[in-house]
Amino acid sequence: MDCAKASYDWPVLAIGMGIAAEHGIGLIAFQAQSIFILIFGDSMKAFQDYYPENLAHCYGCGSLNTLGHQIKTYWDGEETVTRFTPEPHHTAIPGFTYGGLIASLIDCHCTGTAAAAMYRAENREMDTLPAFRFVTGSLHVDYLKPTPIAGELEIRGRVKEIKGRKVIVEATVLAAGVPTARGEVVAVQMPEGFGA
Amino acid sequence: MDCAKASYDWPVLAIGMGIAAEHGIGLIAFQAQSIFILIFGDSMKAFQDYYPENLAHCYGCGSLNTLGHQIKTYWDGEETVTRFTPEPHHTAIPGFTYGGLIASLIDCHCTGTAAAAMYRAENREMDTLPAFRFVTGSLHVDYLKPTPIAGELEIRGRVKEIKGRKVIVEATVLAAGVPTARGEVVAVQMPEGFGA
Repeated sequence: MDCAKASYDWPVLAIGMGIAAEHGIGLIAFQAQSIFILIFGDSMKAFQDYYPENLAHCYGCGSLNTLGHQIKTYWDGEETVTRFTPEPHHTAIPGFTYGGLIASLIDCHCTGTAAAAMYRAENREMDTLPAFRFVTGSLHVDYLKPTPIAGELEIRGRVKEIKGRKVIVEATVLAAGVPTARGEVVAVQMPEGFGA
Repeated sequence: MDCAKASYDWPVLAIGMGIAAEHGIGLIAFQAQSIFILIFGDSMKAFQDYYPENLAHCYGCGSLNTLGHQIKTYWDGEETVTRFTPEPHHTAIPGFTYGGLIASLIDCHCTGTAAAAMYRAENREMDTLPAFRFVTGSLHVDYLKPTPIAGELEIRGRVKEIKGRKVIVEATVLAAGVPTARGEVVAVQMPEGFGA
């Protein structure tokens, strides 16, 4: 996390807040005799925003895939969280969310979590090299009940195990706070010659 | 299978072929002294084409979801087959198919297979009532190797078990004939009050 501390007058602060908001940068201001600003650079960056450009085209989570879901995952303590609002056409039976979309959200949420967990395990920031990128070895989803297609879904993940190049991640999908699906992904660190 | 046999002159055959093509009806012609036509009504209808209209909106397989994948599944002996060509934006890592799409294809292929298998088990045609429609209880996918995003994928399914309202279906995804993913779905016959 890059952290800068400075003292500015109000008008400068206003401009700074505008720029910060535009770039998704966290900003906290304290007022004393003058105004202190703490800019937490990168604090709002999602796991997926750290993927190398050539690996950021995934339909589910690639920030460069303009036709994809572009999910964003963040730490929330020891858990990870993604929020996603299905489109009306992402339906299964009318009124409910398509199970394939739920599987897709779990998939990308968990591979993102795996990468973030591996950085944490190595006590490294996510903007340091070499970059971690995980692919899916296996995916399992239990559909607990129909998931209403009515607003934002929350996907919460937790690392179950790290062993070698594999990270096992559990995830729960919640609709209005109610768990509707549970998943588990065995994520595998992408080999150098992936697909060769 | 409805089957009609008739004798027509060439101009009639030409008109008939046009109508048949428009409606996706199989047509075989034999020429002798006159022309015989065998029209296999319904022979080209996919499992999904028998879903009741109110249950045909699924993003993966609903024939009425114009923004969805609209997959079509057919019997091939004891196996079932779906063919689907991913769009360029359905990418994972560049050059390969998105795992979430693969999971989605397996999901809908297997629920469709479950419905067809239940009709077969009851020795009923798929256009008879009551209609069968299955939802996904659980989905498991093992990604064997990266799936090239280069042309048509084939998903082949086989019924593993029918017990009560559950049908367990296994599926394999093949790219240019090479298995790249294996899946298993526990499909559950949709209850009357689904989602209530």
